[in-house]
Amino acid sequence: MQTNIEESIKIYGKKIDDLLKEIIPPDRDDYLSEPIWHHLRTGGKRIRPAICLITCKELGGNPDEALHFALAIEILHNMFLLHDDIEDEDTMRRDQPTVWVKYGVANAINAGDYLLARAYHCILISPIPSDRKLKLLEIFTLTYEKTVEGQALDINARGETDYTVEKYLELVRLKTGYYLACGMVGGAVVASGNNIEGTIDKIWALGKLMGPAFQIKDDLIDLTVGKGRGGVIGSDIKEGKASFLYAYTSELANDNDKTALIEIMMKQREDTTDDNVQYVLDIYNRYGAIDHAQKYANDLIKQTYDIIDEIPTTNKTVFKDIANFMSQRMT
Amino acid sequence: MQTNIEESIKIYGKKIDDLLKEIIPPDRDDYLSEPIWHHLRTGGKRIRPAICLITCKELGGNPDEALHFALAIEILHNMFLLHDDIEDEDTMRRDQPTVWVKYGVANAINAGDYLLARAYHCILISPIPSDRKLKLLEIFTLTYEKTVEGQALDINARGETDYTVEKYLELVRLKTGYYLACGMVGGAVVASGNNIEGTIDKIWALGKLMGPAFQIKDDLIDLTVGKGRGGVIGSDIKEGKASFLYAYTSELANDNDKTALIEIMMKQREDTTDDNVQYVLDIYNRYGAIDHAQKYANDLIKQTYDIIDEIPTTNKTVFKDIANFMSQRMT
Repeated sequence: MQTNIEESIKIYGKKIDDLLKEIIPPDRDDYLSEPIWHHLRTGGKRIRPAICLITCKELGGNPDEALHFALAIEILHNMFLLHDDIEDEDTMRRDQPTVWVKYGVANAINAGDYLLARAYHCILISPIPSDRKLKLLEIFTLTYEKTVEGQALDINARGETDYTVEKYLELVRLKTGYYLACGMVGGAVVASGNNIEGTIDKIWALGKLMGPAFQIKDDLIDLTVGKGRGGVIGSDIKEGKASFLYAYTSELANDNDKTALIEIMMKQREDTTDDNVQYVLDIYNRYGAIDHAQKYANDLIKQTYDIIDEIPTTNKTVFKDIANFMSQRMT
Repeated sequence: MQTNIEESIKIYGKKIDDLLKEIIPPDRDDYLSEPIWHHLRTGGKRIRPAICLITCKELGGNPDEALHFALAIEILHNMFLLHDDIEDEDTMRRDQPTVWVKYGVANAINAGDYLLARAYHCILISPIPSDRKLKLLEIFTLTYEKTVEGQALDINARGETDYTVEKYLELVRLKTGYYLACGMVGGAVVASGNNIEGTIDKIWALGKLMGPAFQIKDDLIDLTVGKGRGGVIGSDIKEGKASFLYAYTSELANDNDKTALIEIMMKQREDTTDDNVQYVLDIYNRYGAIDHAQKYANDLIKQTYDIIDEIPTTNKTVFKDIANFMSQRMT
């Protein structure tokens, strides 16, 4: 059976949204619902949870049994967005003021903490046997932890003078890789119980490839159409964020270009002019960083195909579709 | 057998500290160990985990089986301290700069998130059967969630004009009650498996009494010896924190006193003078708030004794000792 990913996302998205409203009621007068729903209403395509459910179904499981875990990943994702927006001092997300801007830093940190509690609660009430539930809790906790480790590298990478592609890849595997694989791994656990270690390892390996692929594409989007934060181009440059472009160029650039690059990256966001952004873009182009990034991301996707060929399912297409889909922009 | 609480805390504290160093290695070069251990080294008497282990032992269990859960509570406690210090804008804790002051807000939020991941990990590797492990994860998640709900009330209570003792008690039951009971409940679960619902309910009820008792004493300490943040008296008044004293006085005060009280509580911390603090103290004294708070806390402790009499153990003394101990200052 061929599965159309976008169609599945639409169908599963409705189920996810219904359960989300149960787990986090939108109208409670508790200082938590309001900031959380201000954030949740700004959008999100429910792609991560949908991919969990698609994986579960493709491996012979009942997607309804994976629904709580799928939602937990979506909640975790939003918890990270709330905390990351404070950490990165982002004032806009999807053309709306971020939660910390609208409700203050204290409420934004605390609302993120609440989301995490509800994510764990959601897994704990999953309609599945205890052993699988514990396995899901392990996967979820590992993913949460590795993502935080990646974020620690990210926070402290700003303007690092000896930044390399290798450092970038380590960061991205941690911050994005576990996270992208987590839903698929969970879907596999629900489908097949605990006797699928081999498949689980393969799906984690997929994540290690898809994470960088996704992030490199995201880095490129920031330089072309902007990340939906008021349509601003070059937000990563203003933030001094160590993108693939920055890592690659840092390794190649001559001393003059490298010094100029670091100087602009280290500037405070409000002091970085549009001319500065253009200057960095020119340096990136001079070293072919943008072309290289595009090619590198596409190569990673091709590598995932080899792993997908080893996953025990008759329908390889759906996993390849997922890999392609996840390497595109999913915010 | 009589158990000396302080003696037990010392013995168990060593075991807790050893496991803590395994779960969160102090010397990793990952931008997480350093801020976390800067915080952990400022102290902490390991009272919460010790009480978990004492409870487990008194109810006939093996405390070694509860050690991971006990440590998870200690880690949760420290995660909340990291986030609370940012949320309350506290610059000093135990006479040291707080983590957000020393390492920045981004690293402090993220280090707190990491602690929570390790707390869950710690429970997940507990040497106990799956069903008990899931029960512990449920207790832990409930406690985490309720504490966050209490924090939401706390953040938004600042300078609330119609503050009442009832609102205060609701806040404190959430923010402190679950938290204090959690270790004892977990100790009971490890001791007796899942066939102890009655005992568990009684221990949660203890928490609902001990939480306010502890918090009211903490509120009083802030007005007498200070909370160890550079020895400053009246830190709660400067922060505009809705203490028991504030709630009680708000309900009784005439319009003039109430207006003066709110005006000072609403001032930014840096604008609140020592004269302002003294002025609030004078109002509190005029309405007998300090005496009443002392009496109210002691009454709560006495009420815990009735519940303790129903817990199925031959040694009631140890639980009464715990209740007394936990109503004292434990930071």
